[in-house]
Amino acid sequence: MKNPRYTPLAAALPSTVPFVGPETQERAQGAHFRARLGANESVFGPSPKAVAAMQAAARDVWMYADPENHDLRAALAAAHGVTPAHVVVGEGIDGLLGYLVRLLIGPGDAVVTSDGAYPTFNFHVAGFGGTLHKVPYREDREDPAALFAKAAETDAKLVYLANPDNPMGSWHSGTDIRAALDMLPDGCLLALDEAYVECAPEGTAPEIDADDPRVIRFRTFSKVHGMAGARVGYGIAAPGLVLAFNKVRNHFGMNRIAQVGAIAALQDTGWLSHVQGEIARARDTIAEVARANGLVPLPSATNFVAIDCGGDGAFAKSVLDNLVAQGVFVRMPFAAPQNRCIRVSCGRPADLAIFAEALPRALATARGQVT
Amino acid sequence: MKNPRYTPLAAALPSTVPFVGPETQERAQGAHFRARLGANESVFGPSPKAVAAMQAAARDVWMYADPENHDLRAALAAAHGVTPAHVVVGEGIDGLLGYLVRLLIGPGDAVVTSDGAYPTFNFHVAGFGGTLHKVPYREDREDPAALFAKAAETDAKLVYLANPDNPMGSWHSGTDIRAALDMLPDGCLLALDEAYVECAPEGTAPEIDADDPRVIRFRTFSKVHGMAGARVGYGIAAPGLVLAFNKVRNHFGMNRIAQVGAIAALQDTGWLSHVQGEIARARDTIAEVARANGLVPLPSATNFVAIDCGGDGAFAKSVLDNLVAQGVFVRMPFAAPQNRCIRVSCGRPADLAIFAEALPRALATARGQVT
Repeated sequence: MKNPRYTPLAAALPSTVPFVGPETQERAQGAHFRARLGANESVFGPSPKAVAAMQAAARDVWMYADPENHDLRAALAAAHGVTPAHVVVGEGIDGLLGYLVRLLIGPGDAVVTSDGAYPTFNFHVAGFGGTLHKVPYREDREDPAALFAKAAETDAKLVYLANPDNPMGSWHSGTDIRAALDMLPDGCLLALDEAYVECAPEGTAPEIDADDPRVIRFRTFSKVHGMAGARVGYGIAAPGLVLAFNKVRNHFGMNRIAQVGAIAALQDTGWLSHVQGEIARARDTIAEVARANGLVPLPSATNFVAIDCGGDGAFAKSVLDNLVAQGVFVRMPFAAPQNRCIRVSCGRPADLAIFAEALPRALATARGQVT
Repeated sequence: MKNPRYTPLAAALPSTVPFVGPETQERAQGAHFRARLGANESVFGPSPKAVAAMQAAARDVWMYADPENHDLRAALAAAHGVTPAHVVVGEGIDGLLGYLVRLLIGPGDAVVTSDGAYPTFNFHVAGFGGTLHKVPYREDREDPAALFAKAAETDAKLVYLANPDNPMGSWHSGTDIRAALDMLPDGCLLALDEAYVECAPEGTAPEIDADDPRVIRFRTFSKVHGMAGARVGYGIAAPGLVLAFNKVRNHFGMNRIAQVGAIAALQDTGWLSHVQGEIARARDTIAEVARANGLVPLPSATNFVAIDCGGDGAFAKSVLDNLVAQGVFVRMPFAAPQNRCIRVSCGRPADLAIFAEALPRALATARGQVT
């Protein structure tokens, strides 16, 4: 009896996955994390109104969700001053990135991203056989000019840019992003990942006409809205591109409770402001903890702070491993020289107190291990 | 400014979607359905214990779900007498079918299904460029011998078989399915969709070794478990195939609340029995209503009943349209001669009373329209 006959592409794909979840680490360690500060989740939680809406919707979960996401798209369109025809909703930005890559990228097609940027995007590009070209960060920021120049050089069909950036927390002004668009080659789509933009200074989101066929911008309920486990992301793009998603998406892929929760979260602007305030305070606290330990916190326009540990990638990895062993879930950038940092998500004072208590020992241990 | 450059396959795909949701019809009609009996949802609702578990989990939705689905897979493995390595969890069977087709099917690869069987499977096959070969139903049942013979004839890599079947409600004994497997050609994977098997007589699920590389069986929480809106499906297959899903799936695609709800639903065997009883009663009621109107109900091993309206597809469509206009959401098979039927999901007595009240007028109107 033979095994299934995979496509040549599927047979050649690695079994490695973009991220190992904290639960996997907890099972390996046999203990729960004391502070969950590694996945840029919003420890401050979802809006209480969203929680109430989701609880009320639980009984209705016998019904499939509306596959058109009509009500949620209408709410998002109103919030962004676009029409529902400009909005596509999916199972997180991760899911939407997968659909987008599938629509554009076949074997050998060129795609551009930054070395060290979002690995799940790279996972999708590899998964559809695309050829990924990477440009380095420039002073710990994504480099739009270099990205778009590389796209022109490689005749790329798709370029990925996160603003603000993950994992560094850095950002460009919307004006600068807008100006850089002039360098985007014709026929290359910009996937502008704005997952963290609600944490950023005013003016970080560029003004882009929603009918501009060169750009799709992605937003999510996973970060400031505190609903990572709900899986609700959305894209804003020209209607032609939005319609194209219908050719490939899992039409009944959205969770009904999540749809309802997202609408409630979107309407609770008071909670959004509250969380934005908590994030600002937490960033300051993380920065203070870093400085108190002789480390350098990087400026952040996100709900996390990258901390320069002052050594190389091996040293930062050692610090990270020691934090994890002490029950503090954090992550770190993948690529040099950004991997001299660890990345700490914003948390409540109690979470950050655990981090503050664990960091000195982690540094001491790392200094003893890595010389 | 040019539009995005889609792959040739994506550019050629139609924008038609497998199903129009009832909400779309409601918006078009400007009124809610009085009875929702068209999508084989479980009107009887989810287990109250699952509802309570989901409500309790709503506050925790700030955390991503465990991407390994560890706890749910462990619970499913225990329930099915397999290991977690035999279980893959995804965003409904729809999502898993998409991943499976992606793993196996590229442009021109042959796939076999029945004419009139699950359109979402066909949507995925088209979406990856596969060539779909169809065999007719045989006496309103899927025809395993014909399916597997066609698979051999076309060198198919994948064949789809639902047991029990949707949209007809018919079924084969597990023994017959097991015996038919001898005809499955080497190197062809059987996707055995058992979404409705908990509604079927004992012995409908074939005994198949979970290590058998020829078969992946799909189950869901969308039907008897009453959690269609949660999007939790799973596959049971040999560990090699289960692992392959990791190459392409949306690792963080599962909703955390849904994971928790599914585990609670699985454990509430009392609710399962209750719903099975309600389904049996509802099938009897639908059959009585059909007979009282001079129509022929087909035997059903599912949570719906196909009713032979006694005419052709146009007549059944007219009956269906009239029911919909009266606020009764039902659907019908797509392919002749099965499209002589309408398909009515099991409902509570109140839902079925609305159907019973609406059917005579729908028939009379249809008889006036279609002569």
